[in-house]
Amino acid sequence: MRYATLDGGKRVRAALVYAAGEALGASVPLLDAPACAVELVHAYSLVHDDLPCMDDDDLRRGKPTCHRTYGEATALLAGDALQTLAFQILAEDAALAVLAPAKRLQMIATLAAAAGSSGMAGGQAIDLAAVGKPMDADQLQEMHTRKTGALIHGSVMLGALATGNGTPAHLAALDRFGRVVGLAFQIVDDILDVEGDTQTLGKTARADAARNKPTYPAVLGMAAARQRARELHKEALESLAPFGDNGQILAALASFILERRQ
Amino acid sequence: MRYATLDGGKRVRAALVYAAGEALGASVPLLDAPACAVELVHAYSLVHDDLPCMDDDDLRRGKPTCHRTYGEATALLAGDALQTLAFQILAEDAALAVLAPAKRLQMIATLAAAAGSSGMAGGQAIDLAAVGKPMDADQLQEMHTRKTGALIHGSVMLGALATGNGTPAHLAALDRFGRVVGLAFQIVDDILDVEGDTQTLGKTARADAARNKPTYPAVLGMAAARQRARELHKEALESLAPFGDNGQILAALASFILERRQ
Repeated sequence: MRYATLDGGKRVRAALVYAAGEALGASVPLLDAPACAVELVHAYSLVHDDLPCMDDDDLRRGKPTCHRTYGEATALLAGDALQTLAFQILAEDAALAVLAPAKRLQMIATLAAAAGSSGMAGGQAIDLAAVGKPMDADQLQEMHTRKTGALIHGSVMLGALATGNGTPAHLAALDRFGRVVGLAFQIVDDILDVEGDTQTLGKTARADAARNKPTYPAVLGMAAARQRARELHKEALESLAPFGDNGQILAALASFILERRQ
Repeated sequence: MRYATLDGGKRVRAALVYAAGEALGASVPLLDAPACAVELVHAYSLVHDDLPCMDDDDLRRGKPTCHRTYGEATALLAGDALQTLAFQILAEDAALAVLAPAKRLQMIATLAAAAGSSGMAGGQAIDLAAVGKPMDADQLQEMHTRKTGALIHGSVMLGALATGNGTPAHLAALDRFGRVVGLAFQIVDDILDVEGDTQTLGKTARADAARNKPTYPAVLGMAAARQRARELHKEALESLAPFGDNGQILAALASFILERRQ
């Protein structure tokens, strides 16, 4: 569990929790638990994704994947227990005791919806079923929205839930921001899989194409995939208008996500 | 997910939720969500346990295991999403809205502690590390207490949490009952693995011995394993004294668990 979580990774999801919370004036200690929780769910999904029966990957975050180091059975269990720990932290974290318990329940429900069959795991199941089959742009967007977008969106909303603040307009803006950035994140991932190198990515480049996976460059072409990412970037920045200067960190994160090389 | 949950299984954990709740006078609709949640966690653990990298089992609940029917990747994801759903149900179930949100958070924390690295998943990791190595009776009890006992105990405690009722003496009695029955359950499982037949068990008999797993019959001998089960049965029934007649269903379940043939 430590091997899969404690060194490396961009921590984009945790950063989104903090940035969304701070845009609404949250106290930072209230953001630690949800930030950990989304990273734990993300880490569990990577450990399971890398298993031989899924992507059979050797490299993750610049080091051997969990099952290459500890064996498949231990990696499976570590992933399982990382998911459990995410929910345990939201239910037990002492710093969250100042929040209304109903708010914490909402956090848990939000994380579960993002992680489960309606979100990330469901998106991965669509992905599995789609390998080697034609997929149109709408189906691809649906898959990406669930597989990657749901947890990115959930990270933003968890940050918002950790505050008692936020007008309906603010929450609607964060909802839109989370959806747009979540989709954009996966499109950029698809582009980097084609254009990046294994050293910089810290994971195997061109793995999607090798597995005949539907991706934005494969379905729309590289130029259109880039154009879509630019449009989503613009929409993400526009969605932050209600926050004025308080949206600066979120805007910087959106730009980081869109312009990253890994 | 449906394949792994909706037909078959003894539903012992759900029954314990209902029996513990009813012993304290809980309203039955409040017990549905925790009963589902513990069965979902149990079902996820079976799907993952049966995978080739774990026990590589072909048969579960009298039908092909999930991965034999749907493939390993889908079984992995189904297990993952079943775990998520367990927490989602506790966080979202409408019937639980009459409970204090803090009580629901306690339910989630209880389930997480029972399922995660301090409980079931941790016990499975001990099990993995122990294959082929000598284990004494204390180590075996620690492993069984976590691997199987934690979720059985958690089921009893979730039933209790679904009520506002229960004196400290009642809760202490349920805590003891849950621990004793949880350990007894796994000892009986170990005995049945030796003595049962595949048809009745609905899973492959003599699988533990074939895998050289530490079990009560292997470590203590069959006579001592039976004796230990009888002692725990007696202790379980004694622990219910504070409930008087209200403990009858729990007592019947303890006897069912100890005397079952599958």
